[in-house]
Amino acid sequence: MSSSRPGSPGVQGGVATRGVVWSGSNHAPSPRDGSTQRPRWRRRRRVRALGPDRVRAPLQLRCPLWTLSRGSCSRPGGTGSPANSILSLTSGSVIRTTPSTAPEGTFNPGVRALTTHPAPSGFFSCLSRDGTVYDETKYVWMQGRQVWVYARLYRSVPRFRRPELLEAARAGGEFLLRCARPDPRVPKAAFALLRDGRAAKVQRSVFSECFCALALDELGRATGNACYEAAAREWLEAAERWAREEPNGPGRPPLPGDPPRQALAVPMMLLYSALQLGHGRPDGSAGGRLASLQDWAAQRLRLHLQRGRTAVLEHVSQDGLELPGSLGRLQNPGHAIEAGWMLLLHARARGDMAAADEAIDGFMLGPLDAGWDSPHGGLLAFHDADGLCPTQLEWAMKLWWPHAEALVALLAAFAHRRDPALLRRFEQVAEFTFQRFPDPEHGEWFGYLNRDSSLALSIKGGPFKGCFHVPRALYMCEELLNEILAGP
Amino acid sequence: MSSSRPGSPGVQGGVATRGVVWSGSNHAPSPRDGSTQRPRWRRRRRVRALGPDRVRAPLQLRCPLWTLSRGSCSRPGGTGSPANSILSLTSGSVIRTTPSTAPEGTFNPGVRALTTHPAPSGFFSCLSRDGTVYDETKYVWMQGRQVWVYARLYRSVPRFRRPELLEAARAGGEFLLRCARPDPRVPKAAFALLRDGRAAKVQRSVFSECFCALALDELGRATGNACYEAAAREWLEAAERWAREEPNGPGRPPLPGDPPRQALAVPMMLLYSALQLGHGRPDGSAGGRLASLQDWAAQRLRLHLQRGRTAVLEHVSQDGLELPGSLGRLQNPGHAIEAGWMLLLHARARGDMAAADEAIDGFMLGPLDAGWDSPHGGLLAFHDADGLCPTQLEWAMKLWWPHAEALVALLAAFAHRRDPALLRRFEQVAEFTFQRFPDPEHGEWFGYLNRDSSLALSIKGGPFKGCFHVPRALYMCEELLNEILAGP
Repeated sequence: MSSSRPGSPGVQGGVATRGVVWSGSNHAPSPRDGSTQRPRWRRRRRVRALGPDRVRAPLQLRCPLWTLSRGSCSRPGGTGSPANSILSLTSGSVIRTTPSTAPEGTFNPGVRALTTHPAPSGFFSCLSRDGTVYDETKYVWMQGRQVWVYARLYRSVPRFRRPELLEAARAGGEFLLRCARPDPRVPKAAFALLRDGRAAKVQRSVFSECFCALALDELGRATGNACYEAAAREWLEAAERWAREEPNGPGRPPLPGDPPRQALAVPMMLLYSALQLGHGRPDGSAGGRLASLQDWAAQRLRLHLQRGRTAVLEHVSQDGLELPGSLGRLQNPGHAIEAGWMLLLHARARGDMAAADEAIDGFMLGPLDAGWDSPHGGLLAFHDADGLCPTQLEWAMKLWWPHAEALVALLAAFAHRRDPALLRRFEQVAEFTFQRFPDPEHGEWFGYLNRDSSLALSIKGGPFKGCFHVPRALYMCEELLNEILAGP
Repeated sequence: MSSSRPGSPGVQGGVATRGVVWSGSNHAPSPRDGSTQRPRWRRRRRVRALGPDRVRAPLQLRCPLWTLSRGSCSRPGGTGSPANSILSLTSGSVIRTTPSTAPEGTFNPGVRALTTHPAPSGFFSCLSRDGTVYDETKYVWMQGRQVWVYARLYRSVPRFRRPELLEAARAGGEFLLRCARPDPRVPKAAFALLRDGRAAKVQRSVFSECFCALALDELGRATGNACYEAAAREWLEAAERWAREEPNGPGRPPLPGDPPRQALAVPMMLLYSALQLGHGRPDGSAGGRLASLQDWAAQRLRLHLQRGRTAVLEHVSQDGLELPGSLGRLQNPGHAIEAGWMLLLHARARGDMAAADEAIDGFMLGPLDAGWDSPHGGLLAFHDADGLCPTQLEWAMKLWWPHAEALVALLAAFAHRRDPALLRRFEQVAEFTFQRFPDPEHGEWFGYLNRDSSLALSIKGGPFKGCFHVPRALYMCEELLNEILAGP
């Protein structure tokens, strides 16, 4: 995200929305950790309609640990103080030390004791349902994500301006500077490190590098230390170079049957990183280097909108054509929707209303329609543009992060367009999400549900789930709600 | 497999087993291809007990297309002619051209029209539920597997001694010789090829090479062409060299946090390949080079039996120690059981009864107990030795191949030990397998079920499922049943 306040156009018409409050209970322990038994949820109450002219009830999204709310407010301006806006960091990747009765909005210092350790530092992300560390591998992108979350919250949300949060972010950033590169002379990050920081795995992708760039840039902003920002630029320059010159993956030997292609996540991550590094700086403004990178990445992203602008395809040729076979037909609704809100941010910063509409209609609403799994509800992890069966074994599972991204996207779309239909879609996603993903007993969201929403994996974190999508989404939703409620 | 007749010790005591006959029906089409709707199965009849002294009823395992049976027989010798032993090739990877009413035991020439094509040749493995090709990628290991199946059946099963089968195998083998190596000077096989044979992907593993070796050796035996056998040896030598010298994967740059480790599938594939290439040849006999490789691979495989010989771990250190974290605790019951029957073959060939017992008790029965998913039934794809939640999203899915391997393993164990308890376990696995995996409408087995046995993916073939586990298992079961029924 390039900004903590992505624009504030006014309310443009009649708006009715409702907040929902959910409470989970009775999650029976399963015979195997990760069984299909699920929490049973009980809707506690539905608050009243929120009209365009007067806020008649709190707008509140609540899950037992994570709570995003604005206690009371009225338009314009409102009376709700930031102190009533609650975004509990404690569920980001840490559960055990934070009982669900912890004072909302407080940062529990026990967090650091669990997720960092003194010598090599860094964060664990492999956490069982109750927060126990089940594996000490440190995934570089998870490190970068958690540093970014901590530093951004410290810098942007007054109630998180706590020294221990910044200190944890700094320790994570220093760990990345020390250990992320297996070869200090080459700006290639490892994918996974041992607890002591030795490189255990390197991937042929640019994601670790992008998350190092995001983390260190935000840490630089939070600390005022320019060294971090310089390191961030170096990481982003490496990722950009590989994305442009070796699109199939840095270091991957060329093969005659593997022509250059583009995975949606690559320009998406470059756009997001360039928005972050360029925000409020000269080279992030029109004509600047980072602005050019933003424009290039946005243009590359738009190549994924295919089939008469009705389908976002996960992979396209370098020329922006559909690829043959399963790879070419693959759709990942979560990625498309996540790219959508990034494209919307970029379009609004450029004042390009056509691009904003394309971001909303093409990258959010289209994939939300196509990827929503009726009648089970929720977003499919993958689907095939021709309706064939994907080969990804998890294709019909419901993963936490696409739902987190959809919450952000739909609020961002509403903040821009003020179309009540967008809030209704937001409510649909929020109802599904807050009914099914939060763990009422140990906090945090579950990450992986089966197609029927039964629990597939009980882990709270792992190689792919860490302290990122949930806190980023709730933080952004809070910012967007503040903007919506404050405007026009 | 080293032999089409893995030994024939006699019946050693009272044995009672029952064959089961299953019929599937009413598989409703799903709203999305790959929906969770499943065939409903109906048990047709249970045949009577098979006693040790007189066969009182047919021993028969039947699913709508695949049928493995011995129509009538009596001990010793029996009267069942091979013509009554039915192993229908048509379900191996080919569905569309073979209606379920096709004469059992016939090889349908339409097969080749579907799975091969004239110019570059090779086999498609990406087949939808009805046999339609949904992706033209040719996976090298799938090519090797299909060539092996065709050549082995041609060579060993009289009713499959059909020229068109050998011709298809030869075309597949020639395709591998022409296209499997992206660089003809280096014996590294590609993982995936385009339809025209150009290399699309290379993996840092030895599995493609091992399946090339298996395919070409069997093709050499079927055709009498020594060139194929020489190529097979070259592939196996490359795989052996990498397994010994670069255990973490050929071409993978060393990393300080990635010490040498061993994945169970590597010595398993080397053992299986060395059994294949060494069978009936001087260097496969005691003291020969391939016999030494068999012994080395078997010894390496046994390192995976850990925790007081109670758990087969999927990865161990090169010294045979348990690795830390999730990787170290990971168990794959299918792999353990598959390794079990290979170790049993090897132990019986060496006359090592202690090793045979270890193969049965440690590699088959232990993993079958630990990996059997009560009360849902079926083998888990993965589980954790400490009962924690695995990070593999498909951990609780039921995959076709572990069940196919378990059928082989339990019959092989019974053929060796003649313990009725082994036949009861066989029946348990067979009931689950033939109830749930075969597709009564289009033939062939489904590959991927959810934990509750609902259908997860409707594809019949893909990057990992081809013409191999099902026909190999049924062929081996037929051989083993013949041995059991003929003995002592």
